[in-house]
Amino acid sequence: MDKILEQKFDDAIWVAKSLFERGKTAGSSANLSFRHGDTIYITGSGTCFGRLSYQSFAAVSLTGEPRNEVKASKEFPLHKMCYEKDDSVMAVIHTHSFYATLYSCLPHEEKASIIPDYTPYLKMKVGNVALVPFAKPGSQELFSLFQSRIALGDAFLLANHGPVVPGKSILDAFYGIEELEESCHIAWELERNQ
Amino acid sequence: MDKILEQKFDDAIWVAKSLFERGKTAGSSANLSFRHGDTIYITGSGTCFGRLSYQSFAAVSLTGEPRNEVKASKEFPLHKMCYEKDDSVMAVIHTHSFYATLYSCLPHEEKASIIPDYTPYLKMKVGNVALVPFAKPGSQELFSLFQSRIALGDAFLLANHGPVVPGKSILDAFYGIEELEESCHIAWELERNQ
Amino acid sequence: MDKILEQKFDDAIWVAKSLFERGKTAGSSANLSFRHGDTIYITGSGTCFGRLSYQSFAAVSLTGEPRNEVKASKEFPLHKMCYEKDDSVMAVIHTHSFYATLYSCLPHEEKASIIPDYTPYLKMKVGNVALVPFAKPGSQELFSLFQSRIALGDAFLLANHGPVVPGKSILDAFYGIEELEESCHIAWELERNQ
Amino acid sequence: MDKILEQKFDDAIWVAKSLFERGKTAGSSANLSFRHGDTIYITGSGTCFGRLSYQSFAAVSLTGEPRNEVKASKEFPLHKMCYEKDDSVMAVIHTHSFYATLYSCLPHEEKASIIPDYTPYLKMKVGNVALVPFAKPGSQELFSLFQSRIALGDAFLLANHGPVVPGKSILDAFYGIEELEESCHIAWELERNQ
Repeated sequence: MDKILEQKFDDAIWVAKSLFERGKTAGSSANLSFRHGDTIYITGSGTCFGRLSYQSFAAVSLTGEPRNEVKASKEFPLHKMCYEKDDSVMAVIHTHSFYATLYSCLPHEEKASIIPDYTPYLKMKVGNVALVPFAKPGSQELFSLFQSRIALGDAFLLANHGPVVPGKSILDAFYGIEELEESCHIAWELERNQ
Repeated sequence: MDKILEQKFDDAIWVAKSLFERGKTAGSSANLSFRHGDTIYITGSGTCFGRLSYQSFAAVSLTGEPRNEVKASKEFPLHKMCYEKDDSVMAVIHTHSFYATLYSCLPHEEKASIIPDYTPYLKMKVGNVALVPFAKPGSQELFSLFQSRIALGDAFLLANHGPVVPGKSILDAFYGIEELEESCHIAWELERNQ
Repeated sequence: MDKILEQKFDDAIWVAKSLFERGKTAGSSANLSFRHGDTIYITGSGTCFGRLSYQSFAAVSLTGEPRNEVKASKEFPLHKMCYEKDDSVMAVIHTHSFYATLYSCLPHEEKASIIPDYTPYLKMKVGNVALVPFAKPGSQELFSLFQSRIALGDAFLLANHGPVVPGKSILDAFYGIEELEESCHIAWELERNQ
Repeated sequence: MDKILEQKFDDAIWVAKSLFERGKTAGSSANLSFRHGDTIYITGSGTCFGRLSYQSFAAVSLTGEPRNEVKASKEFPLHKMCYEKDDSVMAVIHTHSFYATLYSCLPHEEKASIIPDYTPYLKMKVGNVALVPFAKPGSQELFSLFQSRIALGDAFLLANHGPVVPGKSILDAFYGIEELEESCHIAWELERNQ
């Protein structure tokens, strides 16, 4: 394995474990991917962010053909669309982090910029967060809805489900999803007490 | 010890430690069991999820006879009833995880489906959660109440006490109890602010 | 060092580190002690629960004379009174755990049984929690107030300060302070939303 | 490297990792510095408190000239002003810890003593916390506002941004920022429920 790929695996495993151990995702509900050349590596179906190893990742071509024996997360099409949208995207993280997920359960009138920015960091690290209406996890309907909203945001909140954050590297996506979670938490605390 | 049993012990100890370290249970209040052949291994009385070793587990037959020197958790009968109900149950986790326990302290009009599902994951990972009315922990009365409600749910919330989640494996029960905790937390935040 | 004393040091360091790492105490604000024969070992002044070693403990006689070079926590007299009250007390833990401390900042009309017990575990693991009125940390006034209330409780909440929990062993005191924190958290969530 | 400098690096890395792992800061948003002789060591731009090593630190003279190849955090001028104000300051920590940051998003009528002290520990460990009005992170405007308020406090809350806490050592600044976070959390819980 080349050194750069090895570093990407190590970063992905560290990021996943860190999100899990600090309570930013739970159980088996999260998935993440990174791109290396023309291959996407994505966590396998049913894996837990607290227990990943190199063997937990499915390898899939940019057009979706499997390149190893691991079964990819059923949310793979969401990741694939992020890579297709923008060549500079090198990683995508999807979790059910608590406050972003809670925020995704609230009614939202807007399609884009749905997270209030009480600090400037959401805009600085993530940009604009768009809403994707609810459809069953892993369903064709969800993938179509995601495609229909993908031009509206730099990151996404799947209604009644959770956030999807692309980044220029694994750490960039990680710093983004961390900031999104903090921003949703601040917004929730401030707005429910007004 | 055969390799499969060793793996089960390792999974059980990892799951317990992870629940403890991430604040999903505290002190000595949780217990878990898994089945291997015709033996149930259950955490001993007074153990702490943060400090388990192989020696922390009592071995008990499916009919309740002790098979080693460790004193089983006093909640063993709740575990035994879960294995008796369904042959595919291979593990049971009981904690006092905060939001599930908080939810168990609220008045509930229904006997089953007592946790609102703002996301689809509770139904996908756990199913239907039934309520078991309050009786003293470890008491015959609690065991009778549990038996009387066992047909109503895939998992259980003991009133003013905490959740009981069976699973097809240790990790399956773990993913279930994690989702139950997230669902109770989301429901609590949303409903107390309506 | 005899093996039993070594085990007590290891338990004390594990308990302290676990409380710190799981967010049950912060910074340098907690202290704990255990008794071995006629010596009390107590964490030194200004120590942090996340960084203790054997060298962090002051050794003090039951009557308060120093037995090593480490300066004892200024709250030592609170610990000493717990050992004097009851010969079966072998450890005392004092933290500023968040919800117990929050609860200590509320007005309380009663002197004893000040924590509502929505689950039966507070009574089972701790017993009755008495209130000690506010006085400056480490002051003679605080020690006098503590002495005046010591007969009223099995554990104590120092007003605008934090909990003090004695136990029959280090782990017993630990399980107690964990349950007290959970009970205060449940009471806070339920009562502020009524 | 001399032993004292090595100890300072080790303390700084431990403090940063501990703040990160216990959820007191997230992603890449925090920075810290310490002084050794006439050099300030400060975490590099874009670093993450969970992943620091000796190589993560920029070395800068007291007057701001770079002494190694690492690019200093863009908030370096805030740190520099703390060292200039008081010769006894040997470390400065800036995070976006949740409750202090939340508190920084509230309207404040006063310029100083903006955090209510329900326990005596904020005064004992930190002193007086002054408010610095909002300006863009890393901007000259922010640095000017900071300078204009630096005489008003022992520590600082940057509006819609986060806390800055100087200390006589790395651990002293750490104990201070921990207490500030606890104090903001207690104040938030008590005051929003009045």
